Amino acid sequence: MKYFITGGAGFIGSNMADRLLAEPENEVVVYDNFSTGRREFLEDALKNPRFTLVEGDTLDLDAMTKAMAGCEFVFHFAANADVRMGCEHPSKDLQQNTIATFNVLEAMRANDIKRIGFSSTGSVYGEAEVIPTPEDAPFPIQTSLYGASKLAGEGLLAAYAEGFGYTAYIFRFVSILGERYTHGHVFDFCKKLKDDPTKLYVLGNGHQRKSYLYVKDCMEAILTVIRNAKEKVNIYNLGTDEYCEVNDSIGWISEKLGVNPELSYAGGERGWIGDNPFIYLDTKKVRSLGWEPKATIADGVKKTVEYLQANPWVFEARD
Amino acid sequence: MKYFITGGAGFIGSNMADRLLAEPENEVVVYDNFSTGRREFLEDALKNPRFTLVEGDTLDLDAMTKAMAGCEFVFHFAANADVRMGCEHPSKDLQQNTIATFNVLEAMRANDIKRIGFSSTGSVYGEAEVIPTPEDAPFPIQTSLYGASKLAGEGLLAAYAEGFGYTAYIFRFVSILGERYTHGHVFDFCKKLKDDPTKLYVLGNGHQRKSYLYVKDCMEAILTVIRNAKEKVNIYNLGTDEYCEVNDSIGWISEKLGVNPELSYAGGERGWIGDNPFIYLDTKKVRSLGWEPKATIADGVKKTVEYLQANPWVFEARD
Repeated sequence: MKYFITGGAGFIGSNMADRLLAEPENEVVVYDNFSTGRREFLEDALKNPRFTLVEGDTLDLDAMTKAMAGCEFVFHFAANADVRMGCEHPSKDLQQNTIATFNVLEAMRANDIKRIGFSSTGSVYGEAEVIPTPEDAPFPIQTSLYGASKLAGEGLLAAYAEGFGYTAYIFRFVSILGERYTHGHVFDFCKKLKDDPTKLYVLGNGHQRKSYLYVKDCMEAILTVIRNAKEKVNIYNLGTDEYCEVNDSIGWISEKLGVNPELSYAGGERGWIGDNPFIYLDTKKVRSLGWEPKATIADGVKKTVEYLQANPWVFEARD
Repeated sequence: MKYFITGGAGFIGSNMADRLLAEPENEVVVYDNFSTGRREFLEDALKNPRFTLVEGDTLDLDAMTKAMAGCEFVFHFAANADVRMGCEHPSKDLQQNTIATFNVLEAMRANDIKRIGFSSTGSVYGEAEVIPTPEDAPFPIQTSLYGASKLAGEGLLAAYAEGFGYTAYIFRFVSILGERYTHGHVFDFCKKLKDDPTKLYVLGNGHQRKSYLYVKDCMEAILTVIRNAKEKVNIYNLGTDEYCEVNDSIGWISEKLGVNPELSYAGGERGWIGDNPFIYLDTKKVRSLGWEPKATIADGVKKTVEYLQANPWVFEARD
């Protein structure tokens, strides 16, 4: 099978590229504009004759349509993942998430490709009333431009499935971490502690609960779904049955780094406007397909810290 | 209060303009590109010194921002309402519904306007599992590009409410009919029967059930909500407790026109791809604010036929 991966030089995308290339029958085309993706993440893939890298933007429909030629399955992972900054540049989510997703679907149509996997988010549940939150939770009210733009993307996939005979696989992620993780709490804390191991300033009150899934477990979950789910539109929460508090993760990070910082808190239940104090997804549906995570949250945080320690270059700004 | 109405020369928009102008304390600015709006609908409004018409497109952010200056409340009714043709030009819903809604929100931000009423649709429920469908029905799967684009608009309003302190009033309409109604079943049937009163070809099997709300009842419902609802994001189904079959409406239309056409059917449960065989909304929430419809569906259909008979010019193509 020949796969096309938008955002394939990013955290999720490059892990998927490697995972697919591990199966000798697969070919992979990565399409990435390197706005946040890193060429280093594709170091192994680039040595593989079954791998092709195309540098391009999802907003460039013509280039993406050309790059997609001959592919059979599209993973659309490219996105503005800068969730917290939505209000500072509201057009970014519209452009890079909603319009880009439309372009991916149109490029597929031009190439007669009918299967797509899409990285959505647990943020589409807004502040869920039902926790753990199942896929058919009550119709949510959006609380962030990021969530709204991902929901818009989900809607487009579903409408194309109905109107053009696509099969859509929509993954509502909790926070993912692990090798190549380059944004979010654990990254920020490691970066701050690298600069100054004696103190740590925490957004919110530290009691924000988070459910993290380890990236390699996430990859297996995605493959389980695209190989077993049978609907036109297949929507799956991807997460784990555990959760931790931000404070727990600070403990694991500090232990791993061998530091003991003095903590101070911004206060409040939310780390930022539109932050959700608790995203905890019901994952019965994906488990019913036979998948289960192998790593605990503590494992995942520790593997992430190990990766960041071994790869300090990821902390360096590139501009 | 000074109101800004996008799509104010359309069916819903022009009815709202007249309704607001009937209250002497209101001023109204209508913004419309006349792609489907009709200058004739504003005949009365144009005589009113409290009324201003600005011809412009919602995709022209600068022009819309200028036109909105000094307004205090925005009704965003401009949309691609050509629900059935989504698959023939999929970018139309994205542009005219999703991106246009983003522009409206941005124009408001530039003018420091914080209250917005938005015409969404019962189509956002996809093929609802719960009927009558309440606002907090299970998280739906989209079945049309139109529904998906309106859901994207809802998400944007909600995210702006959370992020920028807007108050959003989101109306999920069933089919609306009445004076100035110019698309949908009743319009199409009247047009066909005007051309040839002896026969009528019906999309689907005629058993598609529809719940129509009379436009003047719809206007009162909207005003009831914006004057009484108290949340940041106020989502209200607007519909009636009745429904009819397409065949019933054909009976009322034929009776009113004094014709007896031979009926033939395309067959199938759906009139077109993405058509929903039954949109029937639970309207307890809006009724709890004290509103109730005055017209029955039969009344609404008959008033519509009367309007179309008295205004045959609405059938004329304008291109």
